[in-house]
Parts: sequence; structure tokens; C-alpha cells
Amino acid sequence: MSRPYNFSAGPATLPYEVLQQAQAELLDWQNSGMCVMEMSHRGREFVSIASQAEADLRELLAIPAHYKVLFLQGGASAQFAAIPMNLLRDNTQADYLNTGIWSKKAIDEAKRHCQVNVVASAESSRYTALPARSEWKCNPNAAYFHYTPNETINGLEISNVPDVGNVPVVADMSSTLLSRPIDVNQFGLIYAGAQKNIGPSGITVVIVREDLIGQAKAHLPQVLDYKVQADNDSMINTPPTYAWYIAGLVFKWLKAQGGLAAMAVRNQRKAALLYDYIDQSGFYHNPVQKEVRSWMNVPFTLAREELEKPFLKEAEQAGLLTLAGHRSVGGMRASIYNAMPESGVVALVDFMKDFAARHG
Amino acid sequence: MSRPYNFSAGPATLPYEVLQQAQAELLDWQNSGMCVMEMSHRGREFVSIASQAEADLRELLAIPAHYKVLFLQGGASAQFAAIPMNLLRDNTQADYLNTGIWSKKAIDEAKRHCQVNVVASAESSRYTALPARSEWKCNPNAAYFHYTPNETINGLEISNVPDVGNVPVVADMSSTLLSRPIDVNQFGLIYAGAQKNIGPSGITVVIVREDLIGQAKAHLPQVLDYKVQADNDSMINTPPTYAWYIAGLVFKWLKAQGGLAAMAVRNQRKAALLYDYIDQSGFYHNPVQKEVRSWMNVPFTLAREELEKPFLKEAEQAGLLTLAGHRSVGGMRASIYNAMPESGVVALVDFMKDFAARHG
Repeated sequence: MSRPYNFSAGPATLPYEVLQQAQAELLDWQNSGMCVMEMSHRGREFVSIASQAEADLRELLAIPAHYKVLFLQGGASAQFAAIPMNLLRDNTQADYLNTGIWSKKAIDEAKRHCQVNVVASAESSRYTALPARSEWKCNPNAAYFHYTPNETINGLEISNVPDVGNVPVVADMSSTLLSRPIDVNQFGLIYAGAQKNIGPSGITVVIVREDLIGQAKAHLPQVLDYKVQADNDSMINTPPTYAWYIAGLVFKWLKAQGGLAAMAVRNQRKAALLYDYIDQSGFYHNPVQKEVRSWMNVPFTLAREELEKPFLKEAEQAGLLTLAGHRSVGGMRASIYNAMPESGVVALVDFMKDFAARHG
Repeated sequence: MSRPYNFSAGPATLPYEVLQQAQAELLDWQNSGMCVMEMSHRGREFVSIASQAEADLRELLAIPAHYKVLFLQGGASAQFAAIPMNLLRDNTQADYLNTGIWSKKAIDEAKRHCQVNVVASAESSRYTALPARSEWKCNPNAAYFHYTPNETINGLEISNVPDVGNVPVVADMSSTLLSRPIDVNQFGLIYAGAQKNIGPSGITVVIVREDLIGQAKAHLPQVLDYKVQADNDSMINTPPTYAWYIAGLVFKWLKAQGGLAAMAVRNQRKAALLYDYIDQSGFYHNPVQKEVRSWMNVPFTLAREELEKPFLKEAEQAGLLTLAGHRSVGGMRASIYNAMPESGVVALVDFMKDFAARHG
């Protein structure tokens, strides 16, 4: 494959086979005479695409029947507001764990709607270590507990679901959903912007336990009301049909790869390859505690900051794209989601070795 | 062109040349090595796509510099909530004109945020006639006046912008924007879901006079705050990048067609062809007053209701797709947006003549 490897944190690289299929049927989906973008969302063609995508996602994640699966718009950031407005009910308090920049954004938006209790914060470690569970100050009366299992910018990932008693757990899985199996029963609500492991930007998956919904605030926009959307198969208005279709192709691709157990093996191997090299290089550095290092987003710095620009330029020439870190933290970042093949990580490590040898 | 003609009300047919270009560059956009779906929204490639699309839209509509152009998510329905929450400021009253099912949806959502004054309603005519301007009961102290220039379901279109004094005019132009030139200066805010004349579903254009924004309600989700989005080039979070790109291709296509003046000539001719035939057929019927008939959406009924199913079936066999009326009103509907070629309307009229001859 002569295609470059794209390490963008999102929108991110998609499986090449998915793009090839999208290209092949762009002008005419399965002899319908229409591009998927041109289909009425209420027509039999698109309804079949939409319901197949939901069925495949349910199968991949083994989602129990009493969870609703929604395909919404607005990204995870819209959910930062929708979650309190849907789940607070008569409660005025919610618990949040602060493990990085995305946790913080969720907290800031929630503060507009309720009293936010930050149970613990990793800010003092510059988001490189998780505060011990024994130090968390949880509120047993909180409407829900929110956390961010994977911090896309900081590269901190929490692999075990925190035990917070009977308080429903809400998780922003934007950059980790579908990277490995999870037990959906441990969650009250899971949400994820699509543009990492699911599909193109513009569609957001929400998986919510049905007993938690149906008492939204009156000022919540109807398009963000989980109950209203669940009752209308996520079609209270026109959904983002093409993004939904591409997500469906990604779900089929994941099934063909062997499902999430197979992806977990591959993702762990990819991450180990990169972290192991970084740690033994003496030239590159990843600041995150080993126990909470992300499989998906690997931030790293170089021995000297002035080497960053040459690194990025030479990487691009070598067909390794979008390695700059997030503008808020700088440095480098390699995002190695499901669709990044192992050969891409091998190529990156080979390039990093060569670059270090020349500049070390 | 052997491709069928698709009369869907939205998502709707797209220009064939746009789809061909999207297909050609799907795997590799301009030697970037990436599909547009895979690009970081902050990378130079996508930023160039996004800003070119805005520039082309500004040129097509001659949008003055003191109007912001936003590309948001959630469809027009999200704007039904965002508009009051952004524009009310300290006011608690807003004026709405009720000319059809979409007006009514906007009214229902606005009622959750303010005191809605329905200045006039076309409901008693079953949305086939516009109440005379002299009968409207406008409130000079309203925060804004909202109307729906084209009702997609009912096929009622208001071609002149109502004069409501100094009250800012807000228009849901989902199914009419870009079908002809307009004077943006007459509006405080224009919004449109993309899936008719702009591009795929999942992106919504908002054009807003900058002095109206910046005092949003605290409980408005940040992704729907016009000021916040304007200050961040519509990228407070990841925008729907692929839909934005396709919209940009449509804008380029419109410019190549001669711009909106040329589209207006073509659209008026297409509509006249269809309405003239319907009126003289004695077999088909359109209920809307001639002065307010839509150029974009032409609902019609057949002489006998039992002929609807055979009509739809035979039309589909003749390559004329998606002609069923909206489920809330029944009958037939032909949506003939910019991307529907005149040859499509000719083919539809020919089929209708033949069908009437056989069943009349």
C-alpha cells in the first residue's frame, strides 16, 4: 500500500476497504439509482442501512435490549450539555472525574446546568497520573458519575470502569469505543463522537439505559432529548445519513476483522510497539504513567524542542501524516485507532529510530 | 443520462457532476493521500476546503461583511431551539407566522423558551393560502419575527420578505436558500438545513447579523451559541467535515451554472412546466393559491385516491423516484430543487400525461 499513514486524532484514518466500497457505490448504491446522500431518510433503502448499522453495533458491543442506541448530531460537545439536561431529573448534583482537557470541557458545560462535584482531578500531575480511587470524594446522591475513559489530547486511559456504587456511570468514549470489548451493563450512558473509531465526523453514538431517560428539562432542544429521539429511531428530524452509512460500513469491517476481541489484541500490540520503543529510545518521551497509557493516542516529545519542525516535515516526506500534538499541549501525538494498520506503527517506529540516529 | 430522477424532498438529489468529483477524489483528495473524511479539521487541507466554501457561499448570496456565516450541526430543528436562546436577550416575546407544518414545529419549540405571538396562521386554509398582510397582528416589541419562506411539506412559498418594521426577520430557508437571489440585508438571520439545495444532511447553514449575537442564554449548549461558533470559525468542536466539503462542491457547481440568477430562471421554468400541466390536466390537482406556490416542492393529488399506489409503482419503473407526499399529508409531491434538471421535470410531466390518459 503506497498510501501514506495518517495519525490524525480525529477526524482520523478510515479502513481503506471501507473507503473503497464507499467509492464504488457512491453514484449508485446497490442499484437504487441514488447516492446514499440523496436518499430520503424515510425511504426503504436508507431505513435498511440505518437499522443494519444499529444491529451490527449492538452485536459488536453486545448491547443489552434495555439500552437504547441513538445516532445524533453535534459531537460529544453537544452531549456535554445534553447529559445533564436529560439525566438530572429533579436532582441538582452530578459527579465528574477530571483526567484531562476533555473531562474539563464536559465539567465546564455541566456547570451551566447543575452543581458539579469534581470527585478527583489529575490536573496537578498535568494529566499524566490517575488519583488513587481511595482519594476520590464521590457523592452517593449524585444524579450520575461522569468520566472520560480515554483522553484524546493527554493520552491517559482508564481501562477499568470505576466502581461508584449505585450512581449511574456516564462515559465519554469518543476515542476508545470499539477499540476493545466492554461490558455495557456497567454503564448508564456511553457516548462517542464518531470521528475516531466509528466513522466520519458529524454523527454521535449514544447508548443509554432506558430507565434513565424521559424526564428531560423543558429547555433542552428536542433534537437532544434522548427519549424523543429513541421514540423516533433517531429521526425526529433528518439524521446525518451519509455519516450513518459510513459508520455502518465500519461496523461490518470490524465484524470481518474478528470483532472487538480481535481489535483489542491488535490495538494492544500496536500500542506496546510504540511505547516500548519510546521508553528505550532515550530520545523520545511519553509522560503518562504506564498503568494509564492510552492504546489510542500516544503523545510524545523529542529530546530537543527545536527538532519538532524537522521531525514533522521529514515524517510527512516519509508518508507519515498529522503527527503534531494538540495545539493546547504541543509536542507530537500518534493516534493509532482501529483503522491504523500495524504496518503503520512499524513504519512510524522505523522513522523515529532513523530520525533519532541522525539527531540524537 | 440513464440515471433515474429522484424527486425526494430531502435528502435530495445532488448535482451529478458533484457526485462524480466526490467519487474521483474519495480515496485521495488532491494528492493529500487522504479522503476528506480522514482529515483533521484543523489541518491546512480541510481549513482551505472550509474557508473556500464560505467564500463561495458569500459570493453566491452577496452576504455583507457584517453577517457571520456558520456551518453547524443538528438540522433546522436544532435551530428552532437555538434561535430563541440566542436572540431573545432580555426580551420574552417573539413573533411567528404559521404557514405550514414546519412553521408549526418552530413555534412549538419556541414556546419552550418564550411567549410566542402567532401573527397570522394559514391553518384554516389547510396551508394553501397566505393570510393578507393587513390581518397580521404583529408585536412591535418582539425580539424577532420568524417565518418559513418555503414550506417543504405543504408547498407554500412566500417570495417577498414581509415588512415587519424594525423587528429582525428570521427565516427558515431550508428548502429555498440558493434557489434564487435574495437580499440578505432584509434579514436578521437566515438558516437552512443542507439536505435540499446545499448538500448532504448533517450540516446547517446559519447567516446572522453580527449585532444580534453574543447574549445567549446560559443553558444554551455551547455548540449552538452563535457567538461562540462565530469566534471559532464554526469549529468549537469537530464540524461535519465531509458534508461541509460536499456543500463546497455544490457552491462551485452553482457558480459554474451562472449563479443564483441563472438558477432562478431555470427553477421558475421547471415549476411553471409542472404547475401548468397539473392545472390543465383535469386529473391532477395542486391545492395551493397560485401566488404562493412553491418553486421547490409541488404537492399534488390524483383524480382518485386508489390510483396513488399504481402511480408510485409505475413512476418508479419509469425511473421517477420518491414521489410520495409527506406521511402527514399524503398524496404526491415532486421536489424540484436546483439539482433536478429540466429534463427530469419533462420526464415527470410526460409520465403524468401518459398515466392520466390510461386512468382518466
